[in-house]
Amino acid sequence: MIDKHTAGLVIDEARQDRGLTWNRLAEIIERPPVWTVSALLGMHPVPQAIADVVRDELGLDEDIAKALTRQPVRIGPTDISADPTIYRFHELIAVYGAALKALIHEEFGDGIMSAINCSVAVDRGTHPDGDRVRVTIDGKFLPYAWNASEG
Amino acid sequence: MIDKHTAGLVIDEARQDRGLTWNRLAEIIERPPVWTVSALLGMHPVPQAIADVVRDELGLDEDIAKALTRQPVRIGPTDISADPTIYRFHELIAVYGAALKALIHEEFGDGIMSAINCSVAVDRGTHPDGDRVRVTIDGKFLPYAWNASEG
Amino acid sequence: MIDKHTAGLVIDEARQDRGLTWNRLAEIIERPPVWTVSALLGMHPVPQAIADVVRDELGLDEDIAKALTRQPVRIGPTDISADPTIYRFHELIAVYGAALKALIHEEFGDGIMSAINCSVAVDRGTHPDGDRVRVTIDGKFLPYAWNASEG
Amino acid sequence: MIDKHTAGLVIDEARQDRGLTWNRLAEIIERPPVWTVSALLGMHPVPQAIADVVRDELGLDEDIAKALTRQPVRIGPTDISADPTIYRFHELIAVYGAALKALIHEEFGDGIMSAINCSVAVDRGTHPDGDRVRVTIDGKFLPYAWNASEG
Amino acid sequence: MIDKHTAGLVIDEARQDRGLTWNRLAEIIERPPVWTVSALLGMHPVPQAIADVVRDELGLDEDIAKALTRQPVRIGPTDISADPTIYRFHELIAVYGAALKALIHEEFGDGIMSAINCSVAVDRGTHPDGDRVRVTIDGKFLPYAWNASEG
Amino acid sequence: MIDKHTAGLVIDEARQDRGLTWNRLAEIIERPPVWTVSALLGMHPVPQAIADVVRDELGLDEDIAKALTRQPVRIGPTDISADPTIYRFHELIAVYGAALKALIHEEFGDGIMSAINCSVAVDRGTHPDGDRVRVTIDGKFLPYAWNASEG
Amino acid sequence: MIDKHTAGLVIDEARQDRGLTWNRLAEIIERPPVWTVSALLGMHPVPQAIADVVRDELGLDEDIAKALTRQPVRIGPTDISADPTIYRFHELIAVYGAALKALIHEEFGDGIMSAINCSVAVDRGTHPDGDRVRVTIDGKFLPYAWNASEG
Amino acid sequence: MIDKHTAGLVIDEARQDRGLTWNRLAEIIERPPVWTVSALLGMHPVPQAIADVVRDELGLDEDIAKALTRQPVRIGPTDISADPTIYRFHELIAVYGAALKALIHEEFGDGIMSAINCSVAVDRGTHPDGDRVRVTIDGKFLPYAWNASEG
Amino acid sequence: MIDKHTAGLVIDEARQDRGLTWNRLAEIIERPPVWTVSALLGMHPVPQAIADVVRDELGLDEDIAKALTRQPVRIGPTDISADPTIYRFHELIAVYGAALKALIHEEFGDGIMSAINCSVAVDRGTHPDGDRVRVTIDGKFLPYAWNASEG
Amino acid sequence: MIDKHTAGLVIDEARQDRGLTWNRLAEIIERPPVWTVSALLGMHPVPQAIADVVRDELGLDEDIAKALTRQPVRIGPTDISADPTIYRFHELIAVYGAALKALIHEEFGDGIMSAINCSVAVDRGTHPDGDRVRVTIDGKFLPYAWNASEG
Repeated sequence: MIDKHTAGLVIDEARQDRGLTWNRLAEIIERPPVWTVSALLGMHPVPQAIADVVRDELGLDEDIAKALTRQPVRIGPTDISADPTIYRFHELIAVYGAALKALIHEEFGDGIMSAINCSVAVDRGTHPDGDRVRVTIDGKFLPYAWNASEG
Repeated sequence: MIDKHTAGLVIDEARQDRGLTWNRLAEIIERPPVWTVSALLGMHPVPQAIADVVRDELGLDEDIAKALTRQPVRIGPTDISADPTIYRFHELIAVYGAALKALIHEEFGDGIMSAINCSVAVDRGTHPDGDRVRVTIDGKFLPYAWNASEG
Repeated sequence: MIDKHTAGLVIDEARQDRGLTWNRLAEIIERPPVWTVSALLGMHPVPQAIADVVRDELGLDEDIAKALTRQPVRIGPTDISADPTIYRFHELIAVYGAALKALIHEEFGDGIMSAINCSVAVDRGTHPDGDRVRVTIDGKFLPYAWNASEG
Repeated sequence: MIDKHTAGLVIDEARQDRGLTWNRLAEIIERPPVWTVSALLGMHPVPQAIADVVRDELGLDEDIAKALTRQPVRIGPTDISADPTIYRFHELIAVYGAALKALIHEEFGDGIMSAINCSVAVDRGTHPDGDRVRVTIDGKFLPYAWNASEG
Repeated sequence: MIDKHTAGLVIDEARQDRGLTWNRLAEIIERPPVWTVSALLGMHPVPQAIADVVRDELGLDEDIAKALTRQPVRIGPTDISADPTIYRFHELIAVYGAALKALIHEEFGDGIMSAINCSVAVDRGTHPDGDRVRVTIDGKFLPYAWNASEG
Repeated sequence: MIDKHTAGLVIDEARQDRGLTWNRLAEIIERPPVWTVSALLGMHPVPQAIADVVRDELGLDEDIAKALTRQPVRIGPTDISADPTIYRFHELIAVYGAALKALIHEEFGDGIMSAINCSVAVDRGTHPDGDRVRVTIDGKFLPYAWNASEG
Repeated sequence: MIDKHTAGLVIDEARQDRGLTWNRLAEIIERPPVWTVSALLGMHPVPQAIADVVRDELGLDEDIAKALTRQPVRIGPTDISADPTIYRFHELIAVYGAALKALIHEEFGDGIMSAINCSVAVDRGTHPDGDRVRVTIDGKFLPYAWNASEG
Repeated sequence: MIDKHTAGLVIDEARQDRGLTWNRLAEIIERPPVWTVSALLGMHPVPQAIADVVRDELGLDEDIAKALTRQPVRIGPTDISADPTIYRFHELIAVYGAALKALIHEEFGDGIMSAINCSVAVDRGTHPDGDRVRVTIDGKFLPYAWNASEG
Repeated sequence: MIDKHTAGLVIDEARQDRGLTWNRLAEIIERPPVWTVSALLGMHPVPQAIADVVRDELGLDEDIAKALTRQPVRIGPTDISADPTIYRFHELIAVYGAALKALIHEEFGDGIMSAINCSVAVDRGTHPDGDRVRVTIDGKFLPYAWNASEG
Repeated sequence: MIDKHTAGLVIDEARQDRGLTWNRLAEIIERPPVWTVSALLGMHPVPQAIADVVRDELGLDEDIAKALTRQPVRIGPTDISADPTIYRFHELIAVYGAALKALIHEEFGDGIMSAINCSVAVDRGTHPDGDRVRVTIDGKFLPYAWNASEG
């Protein structure tokens, strides 16, 4: 039984061997790039039909495809939050988190931005001082609501 | 001597007493909302001219305005990363961080998105299933570069 | 300016001085007991009308009522997760969390139980071996959904 | 010698290969679903008779059945408390723990809800805004009692 | 409002000023010594009648007695687990915990020794090599039981 | 070379296969039960003569017996302090540690109970409300003494 | 009531104001220097007679002397283990701890060096490359002994 | 390629098989005992000539000798600071560290005892109450000095 | 698939077997020494041409060269920050970090020294009291700038 | 008694009120800038003569000057290592620490760069892409040496 993380390493290796970018792979399976990378690295269950396409496209064994379809535990095999590229995002939340909270509260009322009903995109922005990374996080607003099941 | 965090609490209280939203305060000082909240809560040094406007607008003592202009230590007085509204952002980075890293690398090469030359915006998106919080993080791409001073 | 936690201590003291149970206080403000205790101890913003009732009922100063209405940072002033009564709940999640996750996934698909659109209730159950504490957690199922704002 | 956690992974794999849900497996062994999943994943000792049924139903080796019957160390092989589905429960205890403690105290006196003499159930609730996950935790009340053995 | 920990410090000071040992104080209130010290230092709620005796015996203010009767959060104001006298007990559990678990399981079956229905005593033992501290922990055995409320 | 922890797992397995309880094994080697379990699981060096008896009784390889005789590092291979059965003891020390310290000081003066010159025993106590686990910790009192070698 | 740590700060200040070295103070109270500094900074209870001498010598208030005589919690008010002078000792134990353990075992058998029946001294050593700090730790060997009280 | 820690385990095993004490091994290689144990367990690079002697004396493979000569990372493969024998030394530093710092400062001025130009020795002391472990730490005093390279 | 860390160990071994210093290897690939060591140990992606030179020079397998070219996760396989040689640098930042921050702010305004557009060099300095290690960190100043992409 | 950290805050405030830069203050006391800031913020003892100059220059009370001369505990009042400006230095050590260690070893042999006999300087470097922060750390090389005091 191959775990989803190991499957992700195999997929990444096969992808590079075939000279496929993540963006191209996302086009092939017709999914957004951030979702595609996360899902193939083990952070989302992949529908069977997409797993089959990935398997065929990259020439993977069946057990890799099977691992893709399993429900993930959404924690990484190692804590990579100190990697400089990833740390900058955590630093941003540390510096601007209180401001985001205040403005979400002011605009929407008491609640949160969902991290479940949510999409993330990365694209390139331009600026005279040099190109920019633009990350858009787009999550449903969830108001604190004291609901209970009926009946 | 009033520290920047205490100054931020006083400012927030005065702002609410006068019925001013953060967005309105941002308009008055002609700065973006996320910058405005962060800076007034103590995460950025505030230029003297803006500190004076804030002081007059909110009827603050001079030492509050003076605190605003000082250089910050950009760590909060308490760790609020477990507050549900803020935690969701850290969870997103935990779940999607490896994907963001892979796509930044694919698009820009080896490097990071700057958290220093960077702006953050929050706005409201619409969707049939309910309104959405849209956070845009827009930072300069910084390639790993082994430069040294000249001469 | 009185912070929400200090306000909660004052309210709890005043409540005991008047011989009011939390359940009775919940009836007076017509809110569920768990919400009532949490909100009055500082974990939720309390609507102005309810804050006024609490203020009058307990003979509180206006600044206590004002603190009740403010937006909370939902972290406690100290970490009380090691208190035996509270620790047992964390232990239960440690022991049964993987099972809860598997069964939620099996019944609802990939997603989570919301901790925001959620209610909690405590009541007394009976059993020949002794009475029982019955805690019901009732939260909306949120499927992982890769949605984005329109337009 | 196969440890209980590895045995749990083998069982889960065999279960999925045979198309058996956890709920169906619970019916077969005539045990509640949460207990069934926890016990088969390694958190409880399984009586020999039930271990035999599981072994036959899933076509397992004898050493897997033997592992099931051993006394567990009730800690997971990795800390999965940051998985989003499981984290929400810990967040709920963080937000509502003080309220649960206050209400248990008010209703029952000084003591705790047992996490040992305790059952947990998950079911589906309905609501116009969407279906809900309903988790019921039902534990014996244990009053603080300063007893000692006789004689 | 005086918190239970501060009340405990005041009581300990008053006790020493009057030359009362903890054991003598335990005799006066007719409770076991370990319970007495723990309760007066803030780890247990003290019944009103006993709190009155303590107040009169030590000449305390009414608010100290009131603090004694409140429900405790059973965590200390500082972590004293590294104090050498206390650390030795934690080290013992670290060294012998697995053995205690194995023997409890062998003698009683799957379960725990209750830390709630439990008493602790300290007395002096004799030995040619020097006197000994004898700590007896006496807690009810609680078998893991999957019970639920009736009806 | 087999480490002491692995040797302990092998011994426990062989013991169960032969239907030997820990208590019976303790009788065979004529040592107290808690010492026996701890030593065979790797927490004490076992004298050669006893290691030989254990080897013969359980049909173990010579390298297992050799591992038993080695000097231990007295830390476990994993931290099992969160296992519910073991955690209760740590919780007891957290709740009653300050009281134990005060009473040891009052009875013996400034010092500690030795965790080295110390024995631990578990036995069954009876009580109308159910049987009880009785753990006795019996350690030499060590007064703080500022001694130095002579000469 | 003055805590022992605050008392230590007052004593250190008074000592410096009078131009007394720690070594001179140790001579006056006829105790070893390391014991003297530790005890006056709050890590040991000071006998009444010595506390009186210190009080008179330094012109302290009675409550300072009283604090000296109380039983200490032997943990500092802040963790100073990262201070460079103190850290070097912890680093030495990290680097040489396994060797110390092996040699103690080889020379004395299974056991520890007592940190309770123990003295510590600092003196100056000479060497052509520069003077040296010589710290001697002299503690009683305590063999692991499974003793119990008699009778 | 064998890492230095594994090499250390092999050396220790071979040493015991040949009935060589650490002290005898130290005599053979004409180095101090603490240095010898530390170096052979992986904490120091061993000169080629000594590594050859050790290899021949213990009948080791060449790659073990090669591992001995490599530069170490001076951190252990697992944290053994909680082992009782080693912990006592850390506790001593925790209890007496502030005193050591004060006395070093008083005797030598602002600076530290070097943990690099430093030797450690263990020997047996005698005392009527039982033999003692005497650890001598002898490190060069390094004054804080704000020097810079010339030219 | 060989990970970059394992590749680094193989490279270091091969380098030593061939008697090549890191400095010589840096000359061969015409890169600065610190960059060379970091990159070959796995902290930077190595351009294909340089990876080919390293492969040929050290007689490595192709998969080692391939590992060199992959994008790194810039976290080590183990935390070596407590190694004495490395710890001293962290201690320096702990002691002088606030001063560096104040002086960068005074000289350049609000911002940071980039750790991405940055080079590090080590060389030998001379001094009558002994040779010195001189580490130069040379990073671009990045002012806090609230820029956003255009258009 | 004013602690050194509070004294540092007062000095920084007075310095700003007088419009003195740190560099100017360093010139006045004729010390290097990094030393000056560190020492005045509490990380070094300041010689009496310099403390007097600072007191006079900034119009400070005598107890501030007295605090400057005291021996420091070299740990900050709060952990500021996560401040972005300071964190970058720690990140650099995390990324390049293993390389620094390897090159120091190659150039100097087994040992460390002293953090005690060490100076730090910050200056401005130029580069076509923007000015640079240049930090020079210049510490004495200390070889591991197993020396002991004579006689």
